[in-house]
Amino acid sequence: MRAVVFENYGEFPSLTEVPTPTPGPGEVLLRVAGAGACHSDISVYRVFREGQPGAQRPPFVLGHENAGWVEALGPGVSDRIRVGAAYLVYGPIGCGHCRRCAEGSDTYCENAATMPYLAVGLGRDGGMAEYMTVPAHHLIPLDDADPVAAAPLADAGLTPYHTIRQTLPHLNSGGRYALVIGLGGLGRIGVQILRALSGATVIATDVKEDALRRAEADGAVTVPAGERQVEEIRALTGGRGVDAAFDFVGATPTIAAAAACMAPGGRFNVVGIAGGTHEFSFFTNPYESYMTNTYWGSVKDLWEVVDMYKAGQIRPEIERFSMGDALEAYRRLEAGEISGRAVVTPDAH
Amino acid sequence: MRAVVFENYGEFPSLTEVPTPTPGPGEVLLRVAGAGACHSDISVYRVFREGQPGAQRPPFVLGHENAGWVEALGPGVSDRIRVGAAYLVYGPIGCGHCRRCAEGSDTYCENAATMPYLAVGLGRDGGMAEYMTVPAHHLIPLDDADPVAAAPLADAGLTPYHTIRQTLPHLNSGGRYALVIGLGGLGRIGVQILRALSGATVIATDVKEDALRRAEADGAVTVPAGERQVEEIRALTGGRGVDAAFDFVGATPTIAAAAACMAPGGRFNVVGIAGGTHEFSFFTNPYESYMTNTYWGSVKDLWEVVDMYKAGQIRPEIERFSMGDALEAYRRLEAGEISGRAVVTPDAH
Amino acid sequence: MRAVVFENYGEFPSLTEVPTPTPGPGEVLLRVAGAGACHSDISVYRVFREGQPGAQRPPFVLGHENAGWVEALGPGVSDRIRVGAAYLVYGPIGCGHCRRCAEGSDTYCENAATMPYLAVGLGRDGGMAEYMTVPAHHLIPLDDADPVAAAPLADAGLTPYHTIRQTLPHLNSGGRYALVIGLGGLGRIGVQILRALSGATVIATDVKEDALRRAEADGAVTVPAGERQVEEIRALTGGRGVDAAFDFVGATPTIAAAAACMAPGGRFNVVGIAGGTHEFSFFTNPYESYMTNTYWGSVKDLWEVVDMYKAGQIRPEIERFSMGDALEAYRRLEAGEISGRAVVTPDAH
Amino acid sequence: MRAVVFENYGEFPSLTEVPTPTPGPGEVLLRVAGAGACHSDISVYRVFREGQPGAQRPPFVLGHENAGWVEALGPGVSDRIRVGAAYLVYGPIGCGHCRRCAEGSDTYCENAATMPYLAVGLGRDGGMAEYMTVPAHHLIPLDDADPVAAAPLADAGLTPYHTIRQTLPHLNSGGRYALVIGLGGLGRIGVQILRALSGATVIATDVKEDALRRAEADGAVTVPAGERQVEEIRALTGGRGVDAAFDFVGATPTIAAAAACMAPGGRFNVVGIAGGTHEFSFFTNPYESYMTNTYWGSVKDLWEVVDMYKAGQIRPEIERFSMGDALEAYRRLEAGEISGRAVVTPDAH
Repeated sequence: MRAVVFENYGEFPSLTEVPTPTPGPGEVLLRVAGAGACHSDISVYRVFREGQPGAQRPPFVLGHENAGWVEALGPGVSDRIRVGAAYLVYGPIGCGHCRRCAEGSDTYCENAATMPYLAVGLGRDGGMAEYMTVPAHHLIPLDDADPVAAAPLADAGLTPYHTIRQTLPHLNSGGRYALVIGLGGLGRIGVQILRALSGATVIATDVKEDALRRAEADGAVTVPAGERQVEEIRALTGGRGVDAAFDFVGATPTIAAAAACMAPGGRFNVVGIAGGTHEFSFFTNPYESYMTNTYWGSVKDLWEVVDMYKAGQIRPEIERFSMGDALEAYRRLEAGEISGRAVVTPDAH
Repeated sequence: MRAVVFENYGEFPSLTEVPTPTPGPGEVLLRVAGAGACHSDISVYRVFREGQPGAQRPPFVLGHENAGWVEALGPGVSDRIRVGAAYLVYGPIGCGHCRRCAEGSDTYCENAATMPYLAVGLGRDGGMAEYMTVPAHHLIPLDDADPVAAAPLADAGLTPYHTIRQTLPHLNSGGRYALVIGLGGLGRIGVQILRALSGATVIATDVKEDALRRAEADGAVTVPAGERQVEEIRALTGGRGVDAAFDFVGATPTIAAAAACMAPGGRFNVVGIAGGTHEFSFFTNPYESYMTNTYWGSVKDLWEVVDMYKAGQIRPEIERFSMGDALEAYRRLEAGEISGRAVVTPDAH
Repeated sequence: MRAVVFENYGEFPSLTEVPTPTPGPGEVLLRVAGAGACHSDISVYRVFREGQPGAQRPPFVLGHENAGWVEALGPGVSDRIRVGAAYLVYGPIGCGHCRRCAEGSDTYCENAATMPYLAVGLGRDGGMAEYMTVPAHHLIPLDDADPVAAAPLADAGLTPYHTIRQTLPHLNSGGRYALVIGLGGLGRIGVQILRALSGATVIATDVKEDALRRAEADGAVTVPAGERQVEEIRALTGGRGVDAAFDFVGATPTIAAAAACMAPGGRFNVVGIAGGTHEFSFFTNPYESYMTNTYWGSVKDLWEVVDMYKAGQIRPEIERFSMGDALEAYRRLEAGEISGRAVVTPDAH
Repeated sequence: MRAVVFENYGEFPSLTEVPTPTPGPGEVLLRVAGAGACHSDISVYRVFREGQPGAQRPPFVLGHENAGWVEALGPGVSDRIRVGAAYLVYGPIGCGHCRRCAEGSDTYCENAATMPYLAVGLGRDGGMAEYMTVPAHHLIPLDDADPVAAAPLADAGLTPYHTIRQTLPHLNSGGRYALVIGLGGLGRIGVQILRALSGATVIATDVKEDALRRAEADGAVTVPAGERQVEEIRALTGGRGVDAAFDFVGATPTIAAAAACMAPGGRFNVVGIAGGTHEFSFFTNPYESYMTNTYWGSVKDLWEVVDMYKAGQIRPEIERFSMGDALEAYRRLEAGEISGRAVVTPDAH
């Protein structure tokens, strides 16, 4: 079968022929409907080197945002998993035997350091291929919902959902404000989730004008990046600041902007992996404002993301690419020419 | 000044002349803009008798939902309270010296049993008068918002807000369902609050057709009362049941209906005071479904209700009555002829 | 191998020879060190009949509280599970493909109604045998801790831990009170857990004098059952009532006693399965006091129970029985002659 | 009456004669039993200058940790406050008209910037005098408990209680670890509170040998400050790190040590005001570990501190000074010669 393979550190991936995999015990073989191309893939093949944090040793098939139809069940898989039915794939794969894996938080596996991979498409073969294998208990049923548009939910939906879900106690009342920095794939869905699950005024900011317009269409109040950004955001809150902030960029300037906008008792989540830093001090941190980071999400979170997708509360905007155009999808992603999410559809003819 | 006075147990109130009150230490004199007529007033003057739970000894001026303009400050009141400005009144008044009063939960005052009154308009003179006195720290600034339409928020807004606010952790995710039983003054605002603060599908039910239509206009899915009610509600949830229920009636049949609709892990709040009962059993209660009751709300809650009112998330529907027509308001309330909330406007000329 | 088999509804189990099982994909073969005999087993073989709630169709090997050493790994099991090492078994087994199973809450499996069994020893062969098979991800490592004394933790530790863990927010402050009703296997460990994890005064009550003495040794204040029970419990709390209650009996009188002791804002957990009922009413329920039920616990809970066992915070009292005396253990359990927990040790020679 | 007065920025206070105050509306006159001398007083008179953060304009009577007997009630004070009875004083005084004051969190008053003082003894006359006035709703009844030993609870008890109380959700299970840095007045009581309210292993660290010994007597495991501190703390947790950290120093090196010890999902509270800083980064912060600061506490918190004091769970160690020796208390405090808390007893003869 054809697959997009990351072959060597620092090299652009290849579209190449690989053997169709066979599902092991507890796994299924999935015929891939859609595989999202994510910015973090670019870091995987362009930036990271052996031994660095985040590095995943090649070769492997890319694609950690996947959905498709079950083609075959491996040994021991219950027939509650229906052959032919559409499922979304929870990508992270932990050791399966620690307390975090026991609650479906493979992202925070206590044995991550000794695992040979992080996830499908990240160290283990992913979904940029006609078929893939996945642990059966990592499948979320899509029923009648479109699996191609669903594919990006596995990361671009799950990551904002997880961080927002945890932060909702800070937004659970009248008169609250939430700030979203960075309106790419994750941030845009973040705005949709905040609008659906909270009554907060959602303030969205980005450097791109069209990203601001799309966030407004989803119900956000927008503030452009720039010198007056913090001042304008504070003004929108009546001076008090925001009760929750989500930085989907994570660069030093975006972290600084969010930190400067926090209200006492708020929660600031750094989600983007741009590697920025911020100096915390008792005297500058608004009292009981929390600073933290979050990473991807849990299986249960992904069930709830699918609920929101089915209910129309999350509406991914995608651009479809055939398998033959998969490398073109990555080229355009690198060039910043993708609006929404590029989804490769290996099954399309 | 003129006032609506509850004079004797079991008797309809009088519109009569009483002395204008003088604010004591820590109190203000309020010129009343609006005072809501609440169903519970009817119980106060028609139903309760000396010594019964809920009974408040006459005579006193009715009206526990009040807003107005500060006319004068009593001794020791800070000039942060601005004479002439509009405020909403937090009605409950506890002892002021227990741990519940210390956090602004006068409703749950630990010394309630030895207090001479529960609230303004409930044992102590209320707002169905041209002027009233209130503790200064029970005032919430309305700024430019209309104080007449705001008056009902003090109970018909605060009571559903308080119970919903506490229950939001059960609704803070994708795929959740909330049930509202009873679409009178409180239930209708309850629908608005649930729609604003959660992403849950709000299912509303009542015996009155027009109440269902208004709830639909506010974004609820409706199910009429009747034999198939429970079955239809369950069907809307895919069989699993609702994650939160709010019974603003509290009669045995409404409690039974809500209890029969609960999902595992849900929370069922009995708010209405119709005095119904329900038989709890380990084997019929869905696992970890909570049954409880709530009463009115806290000062902090009321600040947040005002935030939602200013933001347009709570939209009280009121019918105005002049002071001269105040008794007519109660007559029509008793007759079930009021849609929305009757607000007496003592200040109108 | 020898095993204690429940063969027919209503009949006392047999000690009989059965084939040694083979682990399937994702399972391990466990050499059983200890299997606890639980009161609920008596209901399983004496009380329940086909189709009743709780009934599990015979024949199967009893024993849902098990620990032992891994003897062999089935297909697909990671070598992170170490052959020869000691593990405690999480007993409940759900469908593995719903959102509750995804978070390790097999007890609340959404497909429980269509599962052929509830747990090992409850519909599926359990640990009253020399060997048993269990899903590998249901094993909690015991390291150097004694697996025989650990066996009862799988239910008599997990069930009180789960309900207490959830209730701790009600006990997380100075001046709190917790009530434990029923000081058998679960209640006694409940007292130990409450004393370790909270600062609450733990009030324990039972009909048996020696059970009260043991609870006092574990740090509880005790009140004997009887007419003055509620009055004495209230007096210990200064009149206010208890912030949390755990009824490990669940009969109508014990539920009534606990309900009569609740403080406003407390949480009352019915855990025992005696099938009692209680009439809830807005006017008698202390405001915002919660009534609920809980059942067993999650895999993550069991990890934490093992943490407490290793730290000496949970100290099970057991009475050992050889495999040859296993039926005698059940006979004495039925006769009320077991103090602590009867543990059958199939491996002992 | 005699009082310890802070007269000029940068100057040691004087023991001088001042008029006995008169209670205003809503206030009481308190005959002071004990007033604690706190390290932050030294900053007030030695370090801060007009306009700096934390500066409180002289002159005023020092003493923000106070307890005593009610001598007289001001206008409008309910006779629920009993003349002659002993009370502990909640020190912070906010505007009384914002939403934070409405819930008894005067520390986080939204109008703090325009208030003329922060608290009794901090901008407003405090308790280092024979008499003081305080708002009546800031009194917590001590009943039979010793008011002299209670005085330090108003800060040295309340501050650790508040930050620990909020952090308990991170410690509410088996297998948890808490770290206390700085074992002076606050840290030592912090150890007592953590031991009482949680089941966590409490790890305490300080530079002083005798402080470590006292913490051990209170049930902590101790690690001395020094090069191997972080390594030893991690080893105690089995490598995973601590679930909660409380830095009662707040210098850059102590913040660095705590930050290096955090487990994923932990909470790190900077409480000490030494002004240290720390560089936050997505890649070095353990996932979902929270960094925050807390300041003093609420009225409700102080009620609960008193509950713990009455129950013997908090045991302040004090050194008594007569009014005539009050300046000597501050001299010895500056010299680091006070172990426990210096309490001035103006009433002693």
